[in-house]
Amino acid sequence: MGGDHGPDVTLVACRQFLDAHPEAQLLLVGQPERLQALVHPRAQHVPATEVVAMDDAVEVALRKKRDSSMRVAIAQVKDGRAQAAVSAGNTGALMAIARYLLKTLDGIDRPAIATQIPNARGGATTVLDLGANVDCTAEHLLQFAVMGSALVSVLNDDPQPSVGLLNIGEEAIKGSEEIKRAGELLRTAAASGDLNFVGNVEGNDIFKGTADIVVCDGFVGNVALKTIEGLASMIGGFLKEEFSRNLLTKAAAVVAYPVLSALKRRMDHRRYNGAALLGLRGLVFKSHGSADALAFEQALTRAYDAARNNLLERVRARVAHAAPLLATADASLTAPGAASAPL
Amino acid sequence: MGGDHGPDVTLVACRQFLDAHPEAQLLLVGQPERLQALVHPRAQHVPATEVVAMDDAVEVALRKKRDSSMRVAIAQVKDGRAQAAVSAGNTGALMAIARYLLKTLDGIDRPAIATQIPNARGGATTVLDLGANVDCTAEHLLQFAVMGSALVSVLNDDPQPSVGLLNIGEEAIKGSEEIKRAGELLRTAAASGDLNFVGNVEGNDIFKGTADIVVCDGFVGNVALKTIEGLASMIGGFLKEEFSRNLLTKAAAVVAYPVLSALKRRMDHRRYNGAALLGLRGLVFKSHGSADALAFEQALTRAYDAARNNLLERVRARVAHAAPLLATADASLTAPGAASAPL
Repeated sequence: MGGDHGPDVTLVACRQFLDAHPEAQLLLVGQPERLQALVHPRAQHVPATEVVAMDDAVEVALRKKRDSSMRVAIAQVKDGRAQAAVSAGNTGALMAIARYLLKTLDGIDRPAIATQIPNARGGATTVLDLGANVDCTAEHLLQFAVMGSALVSVLNDDPQPSVGLLNIGEEAIKGSEEIKRAGELLRTAAASGDLNFVGNVEGNDIFKGTADIVVCDGFVGNVALKTIEGLASMIGGFLKEEFSRNLLTKAAAVVAYPVLSALKRRMDHRRYNGAALLGLRGLVFKSHGSADALAFEQALTRAYDAARNNLLERVRARVAHAAPLLATADASLTAPGAASAPL
Repeated sequence: MGGDHGPDVTLVACRQFLDAHPEAQLLLVGQPERLQALVHPRAQHVPATEVVAMDDAVEVALRKKRDSSMRVAIAQVKDGRAQAAVSAGNTGALMAIARYLLKTLDGIDRPAIATQIPNARGGATTVLDLGANVDCTAEHLLQFAVMGSALVSVLNDDPQPSVGLLNIGEEAIKGSEEIKRAGELLRTAAASGDLNFVGNVEGNDIFKGTADIVVCDGFVGNVALKTIEGLASMIGGFLKEEFSRNLLTKAAAVVAYPVLSALKRRMDHRRYNGAALLGLRGLVFKSHGSADALAFEQALTRAYDAARNNLLERVRARVAHAAPLLATADASLTAPGAASAPL
């Protein structure tokens, strides 16, 4: 039901997805009359009377709209009827409801949102957190690194993808106290084989593809993502404007069309639509609200692949493997008290 | 002496600048033999035996290299022989030396680095801080807003430019506690006429031009700036690659050349080269290290215009005008203690 376009887009995407994946099954959750547009032998309708609006406060979505399509969809995951939930709706509400219904994995304090950004190497850099957590401790950043590694190991079929810590310089002495401490924790994790940590990276490294995974707090990640969207949109607008300036430039656009479409394809963020909500006891994926059918289908495919490749178990196993480290990290928060106890 | 290219670029830029500004005078500070390339009636050579390297630690630049060109240049400002200093060198060293020699203005705890980023409106958005301060309190962000307003009032000849607070949502309830508190301080400043505060802005608003000035802490600002550089460079690389793929695309590049150069001109960050170090008792401008002669000349022009338009006095006056507010803000740091005193 969610996103800027609702079922007009999501149901079209669902049909394409079902056609492309003959073994897949969908539970379509929403207002029954809106779901009539897609009747399919592998698509079951699950009724929900309410819809979380894009501008609903988290509290409203969580406490008032108890029969929202978002909540009912996540309940399907909780009850084992679905292996993953996908939504194009209100991100804050989705995270809050998912966290409330599914709970976090042992060893994870805060779930994170991970998305992929196309890089110059022709692949994509996975960045987390994208806005779920505004104030992060070093321990949270370590948890993000562990969860991100699990996600990318599934996406790229690479058992030990590289992790960079987003900072304002490559040197270990750069950044805030919390970032420096995160660097220490990540180096410890790398030494014990839990992570492939490559050190500090900077904003431009997201596009260079210096590390498979870039870890940052949700405030910084969200600003970076929105900045990227803003610049890409401005450049797109400039190109359109310059090529439509007069007859000559319009002719140039026709000649340059194949090149411009190749460029557009390479920059197409729709190919990477479908951000993972990591750290929960169930799989939830968030599509961009403005997604078209192609982009939303991509988010569905991403969730399907994650479920088939046991992403949830992989995250759980990685977190469990790193548990001694995560526990140490947790203890360090109360270290002064703990240290004085034996006295 | 500084930057990636040293005097080979800076002296060429100096000559262009002198030609374009018949009343301007330059003090060229550096190793005498390197300065011989520019002999000009309005350019005086000021010897300095040492050079701060781009990778020198701040401590080395500040304590060991006491006769560096950077330090001698800033000393010219301190002693009133120059109205502004411009450097393409090591940013951290420049800030540290400038702060040490010039000191901060009354009411300013921390100087900030402000740069301009081209926006879709055809103008530029001024963003600060860009990396001088990694952990900022709400009071620091308020100080940045006041200093940024003074800078832009000079640059745009607009007495009350608009200020936005970089956040992860437009609603006042978004962001960390510190950001929310900064929003409150900025609203108070707006109510008392000290600022034209337009509320929270997001990363994409930098390019939309929603506010003339965008205020953020140095960590976030630096990540945003580097992210922008990274994306712009990747898109540039993609364009070059796609247009040189084969004979057909190369022909398309020839046809599209005027359009592509128009685009390049609009995106040309060299036009905005020259970041201001604000909050000091003297004018210091930082050129991008990779600046070419055109870009470095731009930084010189920026410093020259700032000096002619009394930027220093304008910043001082604005900070003084906002002093009661800045003082209130300072007091709020110790408010709990102060509040209990009367009891």
